[in-house]
Amino acid sequence: MQGQMQSYPLTLVHPFERAERLFADKPIVSATPTGIQRTTYGQWAERTRRLGGVLDALGISADGRVGTFAWNSARHLELYFAAPCTGRVLHTLNIRLFPEQLQYVADHAQDEVVFADRSLLKLLWPLIDDLPSVKHVVVMDDGVEDEIPDDDRIRDYEALLADAEAVEFHVSDEDSAAAMCYTSGTTGNPKGVVYSHRSSVLHCMSSMFADTLAVSEADVILPVVPMFHANAWGLAQAGVLAGSTFVMPGPDLSPKAVAGLMESERVTFAAGVPTIWMGVLDELDGRDFSSLTRILCGGSAVPKSLSEAYREKIGVPMTQGWGMTETSPLGSVSYIRSGLRDRSEDELANLRALQGVPSPLVEIRIADPETEQAQPWDGESRGEVQCAGPWIAAGYYGGAGGEQFTDDGWLRTGDVGVITPEGYLKLVDRTKDLVKSGGEWISSVELENEIMAHPQVKEAAVIGIRDEKWGERPLACVVPEQGAELDADELRGFLDGRVAKWWIPESFEFIDEVPKTSVGKFSKKTLRERFAEIAT
Amino acid sequence: MQGQMQSYPLTLVHPFERAERLFADKPIVSATPTGIQRTTYGQWAERTRRLGGVLDALGISADGRVGTFAWNSARHLELYFAAPCTGRVLHTLNIRLFPEQLQYVADHAQDEVVFADRSLLKLLWPLIDDLPSVKHVVVMDDGVEDEIPDDDRIRDYEALLADAEAVEFHVSDEDSAAAMCYTSGTTGNPKGVVYSHRSSVLHCMSSMFADTLAVSEADVILPVVPMFHANAWGLAQAGVLAGSTFVMPGPDLSPKAVAGLMESERVTFAAGVPTIWMGVLDELDGRDFSSLTRILCGGSAVPKSLSEAYREKIGVPMTQGWGMTETSPLGSVSYIRSGLRDRSEDELANLRALQGVPSPLVEIRIADPETEQAQPWDGESRGEVQCAGPWIAAGYYGGAGGEQFTDDGWLRTGDVGVITPEGYLKLVDRTKDLVKSGGEWISSVELENEIMAHPQVKEAAVIGIRDEKWGERPLACVVPEQGAELDADELRGFLDGRVAKWWIPESFEFIDEVPKTSVGKFSKKTLRERFAEIAT
Repeated sequence: MQGQMQSYPLTLVHPFERAERLFADKPIVSATPTGIQRTTYGQWAERTRRLGGVLDALGISADGRVGTFAWNSARHLELYFAAPCTGRVLHTLNIRLFPEQLQYVADHAQDEVVFADRSLLKLLWPLIDDLPSVKHVVVMDDGVEDEIPDDDRIRDYEALLADAEAVEFHVSDEDSAAAMCYTSGTTGNPKGVVYSHRSSVLHCMSSMFADTLAVSEADVILPVVPMFHANAWGLAQAGVLAGSTFVMPGPDLSPKAVAGLMESERVTFAAGVPTIWMGVLDELDGRDFSSLTRILCGGSAVPKSLSEAYREKIGVPMTQGWGMTETSPLGSVSYIRSGLRDRSEDELANLRALQGVPSPLVEIRIADPETEQAQPWDGESRGEVQCAGPWIAAGYYGGAGGEQFTDDGWLRTGDVGVITPEGYLKLVDRTKDLVKSGGEWISSVELENEIMAHPQVKEAAVIGIRDEKWGERPLACVVPEQGAELDADELRGFLDGRVAKWWIPESFEFIDEVPKTSVGKFSKKTLRERFAEIAT
Repeated sequence: MQGQMQSYPLTLVHPFERAERLFADKPIVSATPTGIQRTTYGQWAERTRRLGGVLDALGISADGRVGTFAWNSARHLELYFAAPCTGRVLHTLNIRLFPEQLQYVADHAQDEVVFADRSLLKLLWPLIDDLPSVKHVVVMDDGVEDEIPDDDRIRDYEALLADAEAVEFHVSDEDSAAAMCYTSGTTGNPKGVVYSHRSSVLHCMSSMFADTLAVSEADVILPVVPMFHANAWGLAQAGVLAGSTFVMPGPDLSPKAVAGLMESERVTFAAGVPTIWMGVLDELDGRDFSSLTRILCGGSAVPKSLSEAYREKIGVPMTQGWGMTETSPLGSVSYIRSGLRDRSEDELANLRALQGVPSPLVEIRIADPETEQAQPWDGESRGEVQCAGPWIAAGYYGGAGGEQFTDDGWLRTGDVGVITPEGYLKLVDRTKDLVKSGGEWISSVELENEIMAHPQVKEAAVIGIRDEKWGERPLACVVPEQGAELDADELRGFLDGRVAKWWIPESFEFIDEVPKTSVGKFSKKTLRERFAEIAT
């Protein structure tokens, strides 16, 4: 028997039209290199409809990919809705990619047009002749007087908008693609995650729950996280559905600029990676942050000390969110359950340092690395973190990366973790960095942390090396502090009592530097190649 | 181009399994005639899975209708999930229906089983021989020692549960029916609204938004609104998704009992119709309601004076919700927009007395009664309130009531209203009670209110009567206070200056009592029949 409810598709046309109608007088603020620009949802909506007309006028295909190469701004938010609400697919290009990755990504997606900030044109334009699908580069003049190439493919955003007619928005299929975002994994080519209208709307809804991010109309949201990172963690869409005020930070993400906007614009909700908040920490003194109700932090584990520093200084600890491009990204939020709220401040800080409780509609399981069986939520049983839910990827654009999905369709996140009895996810390592010794797992991250606790160690990276007896054993690659006198025996003695005896490496290599990836993470791949031939 | 997100159906299996896993230790409290009963989500979930086995054992069809005839209790909440999560359809029977309506509804839905509170059996059993589809009546013993008929069709809930095996839950089609609820309109037969799994889950999500009801894990919810009224306004499902504590009030809805539960169980969120809260008002003094954060009130317009009395006495004004069985029911909530919060307390009270801002994902329009064109949101332009959205009905069970839907599929609510420029819905009348005079509309409700403002008027009901010149004119049927000396001239003089001149009725009828419907509303149908022959 079927339900008899309206077939009302979940599409981004709804949040757009809701904001246009209900929130026309609410502000959208953009910080630009030439100063603060203020607009309203009403003006934004009118321009967004005309931008739909621009896409028609440029001859973009009915479901063509619309690339953006831009900082966070009201204009970028126009593109966020004009593309999907006319049936096209928004493709946010990461401005921090290496040129060859950028070229790969724009070509793989077959972007037909790229909308680029004038100040970023110098990163994009040198690649243009290797991007045959890109017929137009539309320049969004942000006031930076960088040269604009004299080329037929170059168009001016405001000039196009001035000539365009507003269009009606209509999308009938909620499963059609709305946006895409490539992940820059540490191995292989970047892979494209394709968000549907349905997943985007459901993700917006999930951000508005009282127990997740509680995005609301009264919020003044500062998304420091870029709009090319999983749609600014979904906030750039959720804020529109809720009718929140936006404060778009533009290119200047210096601690002073971020803290200045938080104070002057009376921000209630700010979101960014730990590095941002570490910088802003030095800018807190003497400022008025009384409007602030929460700080969302994610992208990598949030140090307890950082969250506590904010709590102590301004009374607002960090809300930790966990997820990835493939999870839209909201997977879990470090919400404190009502039954745990009477714990000590230190215990609460420990809870906030976990990756949080699965969001409603998201399922998380810990899969045994051998059997793939779901592990108990006992805080001890480790395994790969796997996810299911309506805003979790089922695959990548073009069919790549099939190995990242289980037979029953769950996403393999590549993270290793446990879940506590209270339902808190705690990440331990990346699956590929675990060392398997005698059938048991050694966490390379934990071992590294213990080695780096030695005062004469600057950096340490642990990789697995083949071992006839144990299968694998850990090899510790250690960078000593300058002038340190350090040897393997000293470190083995230091580790004794800090980790299980069988975790203690037989082998240590002393190196000058740990090789890094393009985004600054340890490149264990390089270390593995370098020490491939070592056997215990 | 299609999105590449998981095909994760939105079904009630998700909230159930989430609560089972994450909230096993959280309480569900039921007030019964024999005292307070306490269980946990963990025990509830285990019983609910066995109840699924009971439905199998009773031979209920794969999508058979499972009737309930019960007060709010943990057992009723077991049925709420066991039926839909095994593919059946929960059918909550309104215990206040007249016998012939009840018989009609259970027969129309073809209920195969009815689960009835022992104390309500006396209302149901006399009809049993006119309900050939009902093969079993399962008695839920609530401790009231009412007689249980000696009949093969009678089964005992706990005995069945003790013998049953727990089952796995699985529903693959999110559009399949999850629950149904009949509306008892003032005309014609009751009509069945059929909720899908999808609409139910989306409605749960909508209740958790910070700007709507903000249902959260930390809430202790007291649904005074019955579970046979649009799923206790959806709270009986939303609270499970959120993991809220429930306090189920059982049959005793006296002011003393309700206030007692609010105080002793530290309720944070209570929901009920205005009549309930009028009664509880006298029970506020000397009690500790410090846990309470909000009171949801709906079902009929919330008097400003009632909401203000609560604000003044306990600091918690009422949150007004508007909707109907056909809207699941959350259509709008009287949220105060951030830009209006600095208004005076009196102005805020006026805002709360409106029906509120459309919920995210719900569209509301005011249709001109002549042209059906959408009216501007100017606070002046009246018309029928029409709704669209993913949890709004598209039709009724069995195809009845097609006239309640527009050509483009929107629900005609039968309410007349305006929308203010800030987006607040204000109801004015029911469409069928409007009087059309000379091409213009007279609101019978407003006219009644003005007449009832006369100190010597006890009650007044206005209906339209045919008029050769004007098409229709209002007829005022007035019940004077005892001993009053009142005539038409006096009332016309009183109305002069209170309403537009052309609204003032030529005709008044003085009557002893306004006839009422089964639910206590004015029966204008009866008045129209009685005064059908009057012409001005």
